[in-house]
Formats: sequence, C-alpha cells, structure tokens
Amino acid sequence: MYIDEPLKKYLDETASGAPTPGGGSVAALAGALGAALTSMVCNFTVGKEKYKDVETEVSQILSESESLRSKLLDLMVEDTQVYSEVSKAYGMPRSTSEEKEARTQAIQKAIRIALQAPLEAAFCCHKIMKLNEPLLEKGNQNLISDVGVAVLLVESALRSAILNVEINLSYIKDEDFCNSTREKLKSIMIESSEIKSNIYDKVKEVIGAKL
Amino acid sequence: MYIDEPLKKYLDETASGAPTPGGGSVAALAGALGAALTSMVCNFTVGKEKYKDVETEVSQILSESESLRSKLLDLMVEDTQVYSEVSKAYGMPRSTSEEKEARTQAIQKAIRIALQAPLEAAFCCHKIMKLNEPLLEKGNQNLISDVGVAVLLVESALRSAILNVEINLSYIKDEDFCNSTREKLKSIMIESSEIKSNIYDKVKEVIGAKL
Repeated sequence: MYIDEPLKKYLDETASGAPTPGGGSVAALAGALGAALTSMVCNFTVGKEKYKDVETEVSQILSESESLRSKLLDLMVEDTQVYSEVSKAYGMPRSTSEEKEARTQAIQKAIRIALQAPLEAAFCCHKIMKLNEPLLEKGNQNLISDVGVAVLLVESALRSAILNVEINLSYIKDEDFCNSTREKLKSIMIESSEIKSNIYDKVKEVIGAKL
Repeated sequence: MYIDEPLKKYLDETASGAPTPGGGSVAALAGALGAALTSMVCNFTVGKEKYKDVETEVSQILSESESLRSKLLDLMVEDTQVYSEVSKAYGMPRSTSEEKEARTQAIQKAIRIALQAPLEAAFCCHKIMKLNEPLLEKGNQNLISDVGVAVLLVESALRSAILNVEINLSYIKDEDFCNSTREKLKSIMIESSEIKSNIYDKVKEVIGAKL
C-alpha cells in the first residue's frame, strides 16, 4: 500500500479530505527521503579509490541507512493503518454508560497503539542524524550539500513525528505513560537539533554559502 | 517521470549511485508534501458548518496550495533533468584550449539553468509558509498539528532548496549574478524561519506539547 503505488497517489490522498495519510505518515516519509540521501552519499563514496580508507565504515553506514529507510517507509504505511483504528474507536456507540465506558477504553487503547508509529519514526530519524555525523567528513565531498539536505529534512521529520506523538499524548489520561514517553524522546530531540546545526553550519562553510 | 511511477522507485533511485534524483529534487518533493498537508487542513475546513465564516478564504488558500503542490512536483522532476545537462557539460572534451573554453562556457550556462529549479522551489516553499499563517487560526482546529508538520517540513525544504542554489552559485564566476540571486532569497528565508517558529510554538502551546 502506497509504497508500490504512484507517488502522485500518496500526495493526492494526503491533500484530500480523507483521514489518512496525515502528518504522522508524511513525517515518516520525509525521514525516508533523508535516509535515501544519506544512502546516496554512501553509494558515491564506496568503491571510489579516493575514499578507500573509509570504505568499510561508509559501507556500514549505508547498510544502516538502507535499513532505516525501509523501516520508515513501513511506518509511513503503518501510521495510516493505526490511525484508522482510532477513528473506528471514536465511531463506537455512546448511548448508555456501559457503551461510553467501552468507547473511552477503546479510544485510549487505540491512541496508545497509534502513537507507537510516530514514536518509532522519531527513533529512526535520530539514528539517521547520527549516521550523517561521520559521513560529513568521510563521505564523497562532492555531495556535501546532500548531507546538509539530509539533516535538514530528517531533523524536521523528527520534530514532526514528535508533534504527532504529542497530539496523541494530549488524549491520554495516564500521566506516567505520558511522562515516560516524553522522557524517551527528549534527549534524541536535543541531540538531533545539535547535529543538524553543526552539520548545516559546516556544509555552508565548505560550499561558501552566504545564506 | 517519477510522478506517476511507484513511490518506491523515486526513493530507490535517490538512494542509489545514479546522479539523479539528488538533494534539489528531494527538497522540492518535501515542499510538495508540506503543500499536501496544507491542502488537507483546508479540505477538512471547507464545507464544515463550524467554519462557514472562513470558507471563502480557506477555499482560496486551498486553491493556491494545490497549485504550489503541482508546481513543486514538476520541479522535483525538472531538477533531475537540468542536473543531467550539467553532468553532460562536465563530460565535454578538454584536450585543446578551444575545447577547454567551450567546456567552461557550457558548464557555466548549464549551472545557471540548473539553479533555477531549486530557486523556484524556494519561492514556492515561501508561499506555502505564508498560506499556513492564516490557516493556523482559521483551519479546522482538530488538524492543528498538521499545520505544525507542514511548516516544519516546508521550512526545511526551503533551506534545502537554498543549499542547492548555493552549491550551484559556488561554481559561478559572475559575482553580480551570485549577489542578485542571493538578494532574492535572503528575505524569504528570514520570513519563513519566523513563520515556522511562530506557528510551531503556537501549535505546541495549543496541544499542550511538553517537547
């Protein structure tokens, strides 16, 4: 679903009045696009005489980046599926107090499941950010602007995924669950932001960018 | 090309060792994804009784957002085509001084053409940022996190497009051309950054995000 279908279809359905895909799915796709650029830089490095010394390390980065790209594409689809379950729970009857209680529980459960997709997407994005740190120095220097684009897009994908976790947390009544979820995300958000700034500044310096 | 082909194909070819698609094309696609989210928020607003008062304005935003989405998808493809012309110019013979001169001129010309795609993508992204300003207040409030995701992604797409303009400018010898190109981009970059920060902060406040 979506992955093997026309690119245009995914964008058209996002833009439409259909409930899915939404921001969580798009965030995962943006992360996958950044992973693709990370892999591209690796593929222009591995096998080149000039970069022979870093070949083993860059091959390892490529392997991880490709695995994260695949995972994020799966999450792009998964996010649309779990979100449908939330909509279904909201659609449950609520005439009697028993029905109301059952509906509330179903919603709480569906939301807890739904937020796992953007949560995992955020973790994947953080891992891609970390892969770009060594790549900045060791990757093919002709593609240094692509390392810059990768971290710009992936960091915004990570923040977007976290916004989607937060919107789900806003409906969850279990404070401990909310706090422990946020605790897992806080450090990766800060670290990713630092990596982005460092790499973006360095790329601009190397290419002589004045903007 | 790409638009009607499987989503996976675009990502696979980006990740591969083929010269295109690269960062410029991916930046345009990221902008299109943000435009799709902008349109989605509009489509969940127009036609709803609760948002009747803003229907005309939001319909107008939708129309502009859809036109920018389409333009950015075209630029996603165009970027791959103009980049091929640059590669072709670099491949020209350079044995004699006449050949060297012809090659240099062909490269300079191809690069000037190539940077028009990310330049236009940056202008489109800026326009999408501006569309999200009124949408934050007037769009369906159930989708407020999607407005947040849209501006996060589009602002990073804009910076990514500008990085691609800059990498092209670094090869151009005509200083006046470089300065006038940067002059066009400076204000839209600053304004977009401000819009992103304002909207992102507001969205987090409304949804009670703690990250």
